[in-house]
Amino acid sequence: MHRERIRNKELQSKVTSALEASRHIKNGMTVGMSGFTRAGEAKAVPLALAARAKEEPLKITLITGASLGNDLDKTMAEAHLLSRRMPFQVDPALRKLINQGEVMFVDQHLSETVELLRSHQIGPVDVAVVEAVAITEHGGIVPTTSVGNSASFAILAEKVIVEINLEQSDMLEGIHDIYIPKRRPHREPIPVVNVESRVGIPYIDIPPEKIVAIVVTTKLDSSSTVTPPDDDTRAIASHLSEFLQNEVSQGRLTNSLQPLQAGIGSIANAVMHGLIDSPFHDLTMYSEVLQDSTFDLFDAGKLVFASGSSITLSQERYKSVFPRLSEYKSRLILRPQEVSNHPEIIRRLGLIAINTALEVDIYGNINSTHVAGTHMMNGIGGSGDFARNAYLSVFVTKSIAKGGAISSVVPFVSHVDHTEHDVDIIVTEAGLADLRGLAPRERARRIIDHCAHASYRDELNDYFERAVARGGHTPHIIEEALSWHTRLRENGSMHR
Amino acid sequence: MHRERIRNKELQSKVTSALEASRHIKNGMTVGMSGFTRAGEAKAVPLALAARAKEEPLKITLITGASLGNDLDKTMAEAHLLSRRMPFQVDPALRKLINQGEVMFVDQHLSETVELLRSHQIGPVDVAVVEAVAITEHGGIVPTTSVGNSASFAILAEKVIVEINLEQSDMLEGIHDIYIPKRRPHREPIPVVNVESRVGIPYIDIPPEKIVAIVVTTKLDSSSTVTPPDDDTRAIASHLSEFLQNEVSQGRLTNSLQPLQAGIGSIANAVMHGLIDSPFHDLTMYSEVLQDSTFDLFDAGKLVFASGSSITLSQERYKSVFPRLSEYKSRLILRPQEVSNHPEIIRRLGLIAINTALEVDIYGNINSTHVAGTHMMNGIGGSGDFARNAYLSVFVTKSIAKGGAISSVVPFVSHVDHTEHDVDIIVTEAGLADLRGLAPRERARRIIDHCAHASYRDELNDYFERAVARGGHTPHIIEEALSWHTRLRENGSMHR
Repeated sequence: MHRERIRNKELQSKVTSALEASRHIKNGMTVGMSGFTRAGEAKAVPLALAARAKEEPLKITLITGASLGNDLDKTMAEAHLLSRRMPFQVDPALRKLINQGEVMFVDQHLSETVELLRSHQIGPVDVAVVEAVAITEHGGIVPTTSVGNSASFAILAEKVIVEINLEQSDMLEGIHDIYIPKRRPHREPIPVVNVESRVGIPYIDIPPEKIVAIVVTTKLDSSSTVTPPDDDTRAIASHLSEFLQNEVSQGRLTNSLQPLQAGIGSIANAVMHGLIDSPFHDLTMYSEVLQDSTFDLFDAGKLVFASGSSITLSQERYKSVFPRLSEYKSRLILRPQEVSNHPEIIRRLGLIAINTALEVDIYGNINSTHVAGTHMMNGIGGSGDFARNAYLSVFVTKSIAKGGAISSVVPFVSHVDHTEHDVDIIVTEAGLADLRGLAPRERARRIIDHCAHASYRDELNDYFERAVARGGHTPHIIEEALSWHTRLRENGSMHR
Repeated sequence: MHRERIRNKELQSKVTSALEASRHIKNGMTVGMSGFTRAGEAKAVPLALAARAKEEPLKITLITGASLGNDLDKTMAEAHLLSRRMPFQVDPALRKLINQGEVMFVDQHLSETVELLRSHQIGPVDVAVVEAVAITEHGGIVPTTSVGNSASFAILAEKVIVEINLEQSDMLEGIHDIYIPKRRPHREPIPVVNVESRVGIPYIDIPPEKIVAIVVTTKLDSSSTVTPPDDDTRAIASHLSEFLQNEVSQGRLTNSLQPLQAGIGSIANAVMHGLIDSPFHDLTMYSEVLQDSTFDLFDAGKLVFASGSSITLSQERYKSVFPRLSEYKSRLILRPQEVSNHPEIIRRLGLIAINTALEVDIYGNINSTHVAGTHMMNGIGGSGDFARNAYLSVFVTKSIAKGGAISSVVPFVSHVDHTEHDVDIIVTEAGLADLRGLAPRERARRIIDHCAHASYRDELNDYFERAVARGGHTPHIIEEALSWHTRLRENGSMHR
């Protein structure tokens, strides 16, 4: 069967085992692997590398699109294969090594990694490992459920290993739109002018002789770990929907809104799901990951087109979507993450960007990455690409965590990923704060009043009022600013 | 003489006094005024408004391009005319009212203000007041030494007041390139593909009947307050030049580098000036403000073209440049700040962006705006537009301030304007830290070793080592993280 998928006859002789293929990767190399939000990662070669790392000295720098599925980051971390990892991960075992300082993790905006590789500011990539549904007659590589950074990895690497996954639907062929910006100084505008723009070609175009090995696999993507909407996430969705309806009634938006981006995760997925029961229609998405909610909105007749860099679904949704992929295909594009997340296009299209915060402060600064200011969770991902350039930058979070021991609204965030300049709207289950055009003191009033949990509101007001008495554009009691985090560390709760 | 400058005959009847013109502006209105980095601001109407505010209830929201010259922000602030001010200022009297909470200051990325106005997320602008060298036969407004937000103010405002400044050189006509992005969803790529691209028209095109009054003025722009290079700024320039030469020798840059952006101020100006004695040649600038150093580089034969949004010179340079403007004109473009600072173009052209930090932390986060975390200095200006999208994002600062009482390198910045994700290079007089591709622990090592002042290095190392012992991707001793600022507040020095 794999011969039908490898349509370039000369390349058929390159089929080999994962272990043999992995031998092209040597100690100290930089490897670029496919995979974006647990979709379309190379599945066999990483395991072969992890096995080898237990037998021989083998450390690599691993660059991917974003997170990998099938516990691959775990397996590679536990084999101590990884010396350096970028630009994103979500794995607890890897995270532990990152926080211990064993693995050097470089937390990058997802649109920027290949820009840095292309200009030789990081890298070079020695070997690319890319999952594909097929190789075309001319040697073009057809990706699977994600594009991520795969195309640029293959173009920039010296050698390319392709994993042909026979279980990935061959209906995926044609869904991808691979556009690679020209090198400077001859770079041109990226011609994407709406979510439906196709500006590239449907496969990764490299000289076939760069493909040094082909591995045949059959393992499916991991399903997403998104949890179903609960009362809190439904409340968040409802506040945002109400706000957007008011924007429509004020004439600032139409009922088709602007193209939507939603970060990965349960809250953003729930917010998107909530649009099913809204007056909006003919919606479009220009996002990075297409989750269950994308297909829920298609099925509800609410969504007309979705552009992303990957499709990551729950097990249930995977089973219902992939057999019917031909029905959705004309309304879907998967792009390189450089294009799905490109500042140029995000600003041009005017996205409504919905991303998740770990904590927010009373002035609207956002921590998306660091637990207690020190311990990496997943990484900034694409949230910065979108928040910094969107028409409307929305951050969502539940107002408390750990049964109330943690307030997600604090006087001063313990790490800043998104500054007050890039945050328009904050939503918790308690309410929504519209921060547009406001000075810091006004923002604090809105955030405390609308977003903080009732159990923390008095303490936030107490801090804010005493800070204002000291003065300043952004009033703080600097010696107390991080005291909420200190209390959490020492007493297990942010409460006094 | 002013009749020669007002070439549209019907508009000549609109000439009136500043006071009469100012009557179009009423209590509670939002006013958009020209002016960017002390260049090309409306000079008479603001004074008339300030005078009226002493006699009648008059408060306005004032939006400009950036800072105003001729002490206008001071005069308006002291008359308590301003209730709200955006997106930038540099005036001590206004700053005082901002920090006291009397004036609500909205600190915005300079590229974004008109985007927000255009989509009605802020505003609307009731009256625009724009300084011009001329009005064309068809009623087009020719700006003076800055474009800033003037074009969009005039287009979006209900009424327009023009100040014809007879002392501004009529040779400025033709230097401007006014391009206004189309409204979404029909927005197209901005066709700027190199620093020399002219993509618009040389005047602001509005229906002439929107011009309700014309005031004739003769006051010159204020001269810039940039101080000459000193030993420290020369050392900063030298470190950066050496780094760039190494980039050339590594093949990552050519001797023409990439288009340069330099923030306003003495350090960035000194760094640019330092390129005169460098091996680089055929340099280009794609910046916001063109300072003395731009013309020094022209005169030294180092610079081939400069694009900006304003020309702001010292008194001496003003006298030498403006009489010879025709010699420079073919190598200059002034653009709307939305275009000079546009993420799309900054990323496309691949700028080397050089901006000034107030303080940096050991992980590479930057505070550009807040003294001691609370008191606004000037505002973020365009630094975010550039740093977030540049090919290379450089921040410069002296390593100490106030005679050593303040270290510009601290464990944790007291306010974040630019996150670690957007900072590639930090330079002080002590040295340069290249942070590209590094994890936080590695960044800390470089910043402490290369950028910190010797007198603070031991204390920084002590903090960092104890933090690392606690663990985390970005190690901190959270209860001590802001203690340097607390000590400064309480003891007058960051030293223990």
